[in-house]
Amino acid sequence: MDHEKNKIENLCINNLRMLAADMVEKANSGHPGMPMGAAAMAFVLWTKFLKHNPAHPDWPNRDRFVLSAGHGSSLLYALLHLTGYALPLEELKNFRQWGSKTPGHPEFGHTPGVEVTTGPLGQGLANAVGIAMAERYLASFFNRPLYDIVDFYTYVIAGDGDLMEGVSHEAASLAGNLKLGRLICLYDDNRISIEGSTDITFTEDRAARFAAYQWHVQRVDDGNDTKSLLKAIKAAQAEKEKPSLILVRTHIGYGSPNKQDSADAHGAPLGEEELKLTRERLGWPQESFHIDQQVQNYYRRALEDGKSQEDKWQILFDTYSSTYPDMAKLFQQWTKGELPAGWEKDIPQFAPDEKGLATRAASGKVLNAIAAHLPNLIGGSADLAPSTKTVIREAADFNPDSPSGRNLRFGVREHAMGSILNGMALTGGLIPYGATFLVFSDYMRPPMRMAAMMGLRAIYVLTHDSIGVGEDGPTHQPVEHLTALRSIPGLTVIRPADANETAMAWRCAVEQVTGPTALILTRQNLPTLDRQKLAPAAGLARGAYILSEPKDEEPRLILLASGSEVHLVLEAAGRLEQEGMAVRVVSMPSWELFAAQSEEYQQQVLPRYVTARLAVEAGLTDGWHRYVGDQGRVIGIDHFGASAPAAVLFEKFGFTVDNIVDQALQMAKDQECF
Amino acid sequence: MDHEKNKIENLCINNLRMLAADMVEKANSGHPGMPMGAAAMAFVLWTKFLKHNPAHPDWPNRDRFVLSAGHGSSLLYALLHLTGYALPLEELKNFRQWGSKTPGHPEFGHTPGVEVTTGPLGQGLANAVGIAMAERYLASFFNRPLYDIVDFYTYVIAGDGDLMEGVSHEAASLAGNLKLGRLICLYDDNRISIEGSTDITFTEDRAARFAAYQWHVQRVDDGNDTKSLLKAIKAAQAEKEKPSLILVRTHIGYGSPNKQDSADAHGAPLGEEELKLTRERLGWPQESFHIDQQVQNYYRRALEDGKSQEDKWQILFDTYSSTYPDMAKLFQQWTKGELPAGWEKDIPQFAPDEKGLATRAASGKVLNAIAAHLPNLIGGSADLAPSTKTVIREAADFNPDSPSGRNLRFGVREHAMGSILNGMALTGGLIPYGATFLVFSDYMRPPMRMAAMMGLRAIYVLTHDSIGVGEDGPTHQPVEHLTALRSIPGLTVIRPADANETAMAWRCAVEQVTGPTALILTRQNLPTLDRQKLAPAAGLARGAYILSEPKDEEPRLILLASGSEVHLVLEAAGRLEQEGMAVRVVSMPSWELFAAQSEEYQQQVLPRYVTARLAVEAGLTDGWHRYVGDQGRVIGIDHFGASAPAAVLFEKFGFTVDNIVDQALQMAKDQECF
Repeated sequence: MDHEKNKIENLCINNLRMLAADMVEKANSGHPGMPMGAAAMAFVLWTKFLKHNPAHPDWPNRDRFVLSAGHGSSLLYALLHLTGYALPLEELKNFRQWGSKTPGHPEFGHTPGVEVTTGPLGQGLANAVGIAMAERYLASFFNRPLYDIVDFYTYVIAGDGDLMEGVSHEAASLAGNLKLGRLICLYDDNRISIEGSTDITFTEDRAARFAAYQWHVQRVDDGNDTKSLLKAIKAAQAEKEKPSLILVRTHIGYGSPNKQDSADAHGAPLGEEELKLTRERLGWPQESFHIDQQVQNYYRRALEDGKSQEDKWQILFDTYSSTYPDMAKLFQQWTKGELPAGWEKDIPQFAPDEKGLATRAASGKVLNAIAAHLPNLIGGSADLAPSTKTVIREAADFNPDSPSGRNLRFGVREHAMGSILNGMALTGGLIPYGATFLVFSDYMRPPMRMAAMMGLRAIYVLTHDSIGVGEDGPTHQPVEHLTALRSIPGLTVIRPADANETAMAWRCAVEQVTGPTALILTRQNLPTLDRQKLAPAAGLARGAYILSEPKDEEPRLILLASGSEVHLVLEAAGRLEQEGMAVRVVSMPSWELFAAQSEEYQQQVLPRYVTARLAVEAGLTDGWHRYVGDQGRVIGIDHFGASAPAAVLFEKFGFTVDNIVDQALQMAKDQECF
Repeated sequence: MDHEKNKIENLCINNLRMLAADMVEKANSGHPGMPMGAAAMAFVLWTKFLKHNPAHPDWPNRDRFVLSAGHGSSLLYALLHLTGYALPLEELKNFRQWGSKTPGHPEFGHTPGVEVTTGPLGQGLANAVGIAMAERYLASFFNRPLYDIVDFYTYVIAGDGDLMEGVSHEAASLAGNLKLGRLICLYDDNRISIEGSTDITFTEDRAARFAAYQWHVQRVDDGNDTKSLLKAIKAAQAEKEKPSLILVRTHIGYGSPNKQDSADAHGAPLGEEELKLTRERLGWPQESFHIDQQVQNYYRRALEDGKSQEDKWQILFDTYSSTYPDMAKLFQQWTKGELPAGWEKDIPQFAPDEKGLATRAASGKVLNAIAAHLPNLIGGSADLAPSTKTVIREAADFNPDSPSGRNLRFGVREHAMGSILNGMALTGGLIPYGATFLVFSDYMRPPMRMAAMMGLRAIYVLTHDSIGVGEDGPTHQPVEHLTALRSIPGLTVIRPADANETAMAWRCAVEQVTGPTALILTRQNLPTLDRQKLAPAAGLARGAYILSEPKDEEPRLILLASGSEVHLVLEAAGRLEQEGMAVRVVSMPSWELFAAQSEEYQQQVLPRYVTARLAVEAGLTDGWHRYVGDQGRVIGIDHFGASAPAAVLFEKFGFTVDNIVDQALQMAKDQECF
């Protein structure tokens, strides 16, 4: 009996290995070594533990599986195919080809059953921490006695590279602090990285390190020993107070007689000859993409099991719906990503005010007004909450004793913060936000890119947005960051000019369901513009809008600005009008939103025939040339800042009404606009 | 006697505290808490251990001190002033003001005695790892029996934020692996961060964590106990095989009756009243910027001690010079950052070749040719050496058993790699390089920014530079990274078009002593252009240059490209010539180098009157508008890539000769250039 069981398990594991190796061979590209080494743990996890329904990958209470070692994608595709996801064998044969469902690294939204886009190392583990945090929050929000409608596990397979990356430290340290007992990470401890043995550079005691993070740590000395794997995962589940790391000693390229345990197995096909030898070694038929019938049957049980698991959950949810109809409705609403009617109704309108307030302060007020209506808006800061104004006042901290709290305390961990936001957004139901200084968006850039690629609604609150930082000096003053963030495809960057634009920016961010938004906010006060005299802030939604027009004539000159420079160009426009110039002022808070408008609208705001255009922004001049044109000018800052009070810096670096007026006049003169 | 000693020590420590608090108070901005808490450890380190000569901050064998917790800058400035660096009291009074020598965070090159620009957390510790690595390499290269001309220590003071950041993990793990016994880190364990107690988010066992990294770990339970501090640092010095972490339990804002041990002490002035109370509590005169005469005398011994230490070293060096004159000369040359005559003479010239080679492959050859003449060229890759072609073939690995090796193995740790390069460059004498895929420059962006700000000669070898990555897919395909890197002020980005431009690019990078250079290289083969027919690759040094001109007539259309798209526009130009178009082809490998040219040269290459300009680059179109002008066009890619063979992607995304010809013809038609 045991022998039979071993036999079929072996077949199942070897089939994963050989499918992965075949895929890479056919594509002539990819990573066979990781799947061959980690096949046994994947088999045990997917057939003995993972609660999922291949026929319905979106079942909300499914367990989540994150392949942090995303280069092992062929392993995941093999599992998805065998367990019955909508991923036919043809797709496996089409691995890494144009238009296939099997890209080089797993892509969320592209392949059914892929929970997260992974590949950039370390992030998957941190995404999983975010998913596990989301699970805790959702569970505490929705579950009721006898009704654990949210109680899934989050499983990760991570490799050496994942654990070397800094983000693994940030995320693991936080996960231990938060006691995420339902997070279980299988560490594919194969001791080989691209440059060779991990001995050359990665000799830390990983087990002791994770124990120091307050994780539950186990070892499985033989990565092919399914019994030990089973036992370890069970023990990990039994440990409720700590996330679990299971160090599984594996062998990269397992089964390949000449490449096992060598870096050669990592990132290139085995080669026809070696593949043949591998099949021999594993007792496998000499046939590409062979699937053993027994194996197929074994894995396909997932369909039946998954259906029965989901059905069971559905029955629970149905009774829950009778008992707690409002909660059930809310659950469905959240899951669909819908916003409740009137969610925006308490967003404050800010009265005109010369002194005004910092847009970070306005943001704090708006956030709180929205949060009262959106209990699924959850977030926090990388240890800068008092400065970024991102605390939800009515809410508690999220921590093990109060998982219903929704103020997240990320610590000084921007990279993990961004990755955790991704995990939370991927889980479904939540609208996560994270805050830091704009300059430190550099630390968070990798997960921001992934959010954009996955099309996740994550909101970044990035304050202290220019030399306006003042005394903290150039290390803390963003200069190039607007340009750098605008360069990420799919990320919407919004730099509001005053409190009312800030309110509108938050609205856009919350409504932007198909991608992340970065709110770029000042440290310093900005006047609240008088919208009786100027166009309404609602114009922000179109990216750029005409704020003021010359009286009774066509504009001959356009002043454009974003954020803290808008009030300067308004004042300059007033002075220029007095000198007889017909000036239009355009507030341009978002290039991405503007680019999404019709060509007609764009021409209406920035008509080609007005060639005298001056843009002012306390950031790089780069990129503005496309809006000001060949004859236009840009006042920006193309060098690092300095340490001094903000007002001094604006003066020294030319962000003054005087300079704007001077430059506009010179340009007008050059172009004979008078 | 002991009592007297205690008394003066106390005075010395309190004077640091009060100077720091006074500076922050006068500036009405800054961070008093850290200096007040860490004053005792700073006092012990600077008066009992630090080998330095305030009169000669550049003495090559001085110990290095890195204030990783850069927000505590006032502590450092107080130390520099008191020990006799060229930093008068007036500068302390001018803290954080325009033009002062005392900016908000310490700035290398700006203030004598400041070794590293710090502030962005975690990086200082990683810089220190780089410095300690440099020390090991320099020592093994130059030291001879009886002549330890390089044997300095690297000391760091780091705070909670430093240890939370992921880069601290990467750097510390590597430091343990490398057994950097002369690296000693004092951890200012004050248990307070901006959002409050570190308990809310940072409960990991730091001591156990660093022990897991193979560090020597000690605790000092009372951060004001100078005897224990002394003992611990001595023990750290005695430990030769491991870097040391000393967890020093301190109290943020020590001495402030109402703010000590509270986040209020972190980032704002104490306030006049609290400052008064603090002086009372510490028994200090109620006088701003008071310096006790005894204290002054005590610290000023550093001048005498420093001189005697340096003199002693100088005598040693002088005898060394007699015994090893060539080595001594080399030492001086390295220290001055000079290149030896003929260093570039073996850089290969690549013969024209239609098949050609990848620029990463050309780079590998050039690197090796240069390395043979520059034994101070040292570097490696973040576990991608085989792919980035960055191994120096004649050299060994740098590791504890072979510190004279100069192939660095960073592991999958880009952030640490960048920071370590900075540390090595700061040490003096070395030309460090680091390699990864261009897409992962995002992980290294924070230290790249700091390299640019500090003006360090660090060289980044960034390969796999576009959708040319192919099958690995969008997670691994850079699209926005050229734009993002070009946005960093002071970073020179070079994307060579073929093997000979790559050779020239390396030359520029090595000769660029005042800032970092990023070499952007292909994965895929590129034809080696025929320089008999085309302009020489030396033109690369000017950023953009005319590669080919129409026969016997003025150009009516300009095709611009960089890197892998240059051969495409050349081919397109040939086709367009056949259709009767007078086409100029401009290779534009570096915007920064081009911007450094005269207006005249720029106009010569891209004359205003040729309005029909088409730029082609496998990156964002953003930014190219400034070079093609209002009537020009750009073929680029403004979205993420896809997983497929590279050739397919170039085809699908419009990077083909056909598309270039079509677009050029359309543009020419629009502008009636025919």
